Amino acid sequence: MKRAIYPGSFDPVTFGHLDIIRRAATTFDGLVIGVARNAAKEPLFSLDERLAMLNQCVLDVPTIEVVEIEGLLVDFCRKINCRTIIRGLRAISDFEYEFQMALMNRRLAPDLETVFLTPQEAHTFLSSRLVKEVAHFGGDVSSFVPPHVIDALKKKYRNHR
Amino acid sequence: MKRAIYPGSFDPVTFGHLDIIRRAATTFDGLVIGVARNAAKEPLFSLDERLAMLNQCVLDVPTIEVVEIEGLLVDFCRKINCRTIIRGLRAISDFEYEFQMALMNRRLAPDLETVFLTPQEAHTFLSSRLVKEVAHFGGDVSSFVPPHVIDALKKKYRNHR
Amino acid sequence: MKRAIYPGSFDPVTFGHLDIIRRAATTFDGLVIGVARNAAKEPLFSLDERLAMLNQCVLDVPTIEVVEIEGLLVDFCRKINCRTIIRGLRAISDFEYEFQMALMNRRLAPDLETVFLTPQEAHTFLSSRLVKEVAHFGGDVSSFVPPHVIDALKKKYRNHR
Amino acid sequence: MKRAIYPGSFDPVTFGHLDIIRRAATTFDGLVIGVARNAAKEPLFSLDERLAMLNQCVLDVPTIEVVEIEGLLVDFCRKINCRTIIRGLRAISDFEYEFQMALMNRRLAPDLETVFLTPQEAHTFLSSRLVKEVAHFGGDVSSFVPPHVIDALKKKYRNHR
Amino acid sequence: MKRAIYPGSFDPVTFGHLDIIRRAATTFDGLVIGVARNAAKEPLFSLDERLAMLNQCVLDVPTIEVVEIEGLLVDFCRKINCRTIIRGLRAISDFEYEFQMALMNRRLAPDLETVFLTPQEAHTFLSSRLVKEVAHFGGDVSSFVPPHVIDALKKKYRNHR
Amino acid sequence: MKRAIYPGSFDPVTFGHLDIIRRAATTFDGLVIGVARNAAKEPLFSLDERLAMLNQCVLDVPTIEVVEIEGLLVDFCRKINCRTIIRGLRAISDFEYEFQMALMNRRLAPDLETVFLTPQEAHTFLSSRLVKEVAHFGGDVSSFVPPHVIDALKKKYRNHR
Repeated sequence: MKRAIYPGSFDPVTFGHLDIIRRAATTFDGLVIGVARNAAKEPLFSLDERLAMLNQCVLDVPTIEVVEIEGLLVDFCRKINCRTIIRGLRAISDFEYEFQMALMNRRLAPDLETVFLTPQEAHTFLSSRLVKEVAHFGGDVSSFVPPHVIDALKKKYRNHR
Repeated sequence: MKRAIYPGSFDPVTFGHLDIIRRAATTFDGLVIGVARNAAKEPLFSLDERLAMLNQCVLDVPTIEVVEIEGLLVDFCRKINCRTIIRGLRAISDFEYEFQMALMNRRLAPDLETVFLTPQEAHTFLSSRLVKEVAHFGGDVSSFVPPHVIDALKKKYRNHR
Repeated sequence: MKRAIYPGSFDPVTFGHLDIIRRAATTFDGLVIGVARNAAKEPLFSLDERLAMLNQCVLDVPTIEVVEIEGLLVDFCRKINCRTIIRGLRAISDFEYEFQMALMNRRLAPDLETVFLTPQEAHTFLSSRLVKEVAHFGGDVSSFVPPHVIDALKKKYRNHR
Repeated sequence: MKRAIYPGSFDPVTFGHLDIIRRAATTFDGLVIGVARNAAKEPLFSLDERLAMLNQCVLDVPTIEVVEIEGLLVDFCRKINCRTIIRGLRAISDFEYEFQMALMNRRLAPDLETVFLTPQEAHTFLSSRLVKEVAHFGGDVSSFVPPHVIDALKKKYRNHR
Repeated sequence: MKRAIYPGSFDPVTFGHLDIIRRAATTFDGLVIGVARNAAKEPLFSLDERLAMLNQCVLDVPTIEVVEIEGLLVDFCRKINCRTIIRGLRAISDFEYEFQMALMNRRLAPDLETVFLTPQEAHTFLSSRLVKEVAHFGGDVSSFVPPHVIDALKKKYRNHR
Repeated sequence: MKRAIYPGSFDPVTFGHLDIIRRAATTFDGLVIGVARNAAKEPLFSLDERLAMLNQCVLDVPTIEVVEIEGLLVDFCRKINCRTIIRGLRAISDFEYEFQMALMNRRLAPDLETVFLTPQEAHTFLSSRLVKEVAHFGGDVSSFVPPHVIDALKKKYRNHR
């Protein structure tokens, strides 16, 4: 069985992520969504909040599992016995960074393969960062994230202000 | 009358911005320069300082107005009844980000249109960030910003050191 | 009155072109669609066929005019007293070429301004070349071009084979 | 069983193609190498020569099959009941074109998915076109193509001159 | 003594090429301008015409020599005992192609080094192809090429028409 | 004698930097490695640590010198009487930033020339930032940096945790 992992910070999960998740789940036999803790930059949502939001999105799909990535991605892949890494490609800037990461990960673990999927055109502009900016100013994010994420964003920014 | 808005943080305004402003003002019937407060990253100049520096640049042009952008850009455009957003394109990295913003804004407000103008070649490398770096090290910025902005930069970095 | 020109070869016109045309026509007071004869590469449709297909698309819009571009674009703009050139930006490869053309035209005619518009995301992949490739193999192009262009493509490729 | 197709013109097959083929064959359960006839531009090698050169490369791998693509790629995929298209990504220019093709194919056949793989760094510069240029001038192509392709190139250019 | 070679087709030489030539000549101890015969695409000017136009540009600079490149560039470099290849970088599309060529040449001849120089901003849009397009339509190319090249273009297109 | 300077923050030096250093040292008569103090962002290694790590890499090459860059790069170049700036180009994102810096520096000091070199393909993905990320998670960085830098990274992250 060919299982793949889709790593990210999902802070928060958007319709762009969900589109890639759906495509990966039908292209491979099983999918692990790996959430990175984000040691470097301060995320808006805690790791537990991000895991919960993702789980709510995929709870009806038995072949998808949501887990925390502990340590280096390549080490984690080996631990869970998964050799295909999924990444979404939206634009040139994505491409550059993703290419660099894929080559770095290949050097660290030559048996792992990174495969890139393309989201629906309507999601090419979507990013968690832009969603947070719009939500921060009270803009309507209902066409970018699912309802339970809208609620979480509203609560977060109400508390922040 | 077709009026356009040119949004930015202008921290500080450069000859690159002024070139776009001049082009936009002759391409459209009127121009609003919209200054964003920059909630996220700490600007060098306060909102009032940036508004004042811009006003000094355009005070002889009656069809140009300098204002603060309150809230989301798309909401502000509607409030001032303006449906054309001007952006300058210098390079690929600009293009990517600007494209993403334009599509995001279109989703939030389908009646708004973002139009891109190209600055003079001599300004393609100019950015407020690079100007601040050069000024910080005491370099000569007289071919990048107007005299009153040079004075403001000198005062700022004298105080900072 | 601020009138703009949208130049191209339109071989054939696609929904991507029509999207830019609609956006340009509402952003400016009037629009001229300028069709280039394409001296260099052999077009599929004759100049007259391309003019006719475009006219059929816009005949209900009185502020839009379809004309042949004679000679250099910048000379033609001056002749028809139009100083704004419209171009659509889909992708990086577009950007590079368009940027180069815009700077070249500015050098030839500093009073002309090129403004770039962004098509709807759903059209970002569309190009006349790809449409012709699909039509050539008998693929369904009904979501890329209007019905009368489908008919013209069918007739063309039936004759070609 | 998840089978994928890797389409191309392979004129001729290079170590870059073979690298992608090896990666795709281990990431998916089976692989079809689809050779396009290239109606548009004149290939150096005939379709039969290209099929033969590819077959010689993969004849020891039972899960890989080499076939001609008849008609549109998306129609061919459906015919052979394959819903995953493999493409290699080397550079920005690749990315742009590949992205455009992937979105076009998705519009023509929403059930097909294009997945992108990254070749080994050492092959990022390789292209069939450059290999032909070097071979044409009598340069050493032994680190770009397998021995039987070197022989074929030598014979071709000897005849050509 | 560190001598460099600047290869190209120079069909015809532009102010952009001359700018790179001047920069390379002051950065290195000597410069060879290598003109490629262009086996593939049909040049507008013959090899002899291109050599003559270049020679007229640099005849007052004793450290610059204009020669024909025979065979593969890397073989020619070794023959004239030159290990530095100069290339100008104007834009992303240049970068991609140049990067690919540099890596290919390095594989063919690891002792050769390709170094990239940046032309003056005012020349970033210039290309021999665009100059020929403008000249073909009778446009003014006096700010793109030297006077003797203008004359050669005029003669060429008068004969062509 | 044509001496060049290779400026950077080298936090820490990688095999990618050392590859460029080796290429620059054979292309020019002498090389100065200029280490920037990095006023803006907080480096992992102090200036003295970075100077020491670099010196250990090149101590057997008499034509290479490692120094701190004081003030603006262009002013420093003039002070040490060096007019060629070396930069490595790995990818598009590099290209954009480097191009912008090169044009800015040219405006500040027209007599200086920036020349770009291409690292070995195997190093195209390498960056000090990625090395630090991998080292931070305890990953193996032995194919990215020399042994004495591995030791320095281990000590640093042991103390950090």
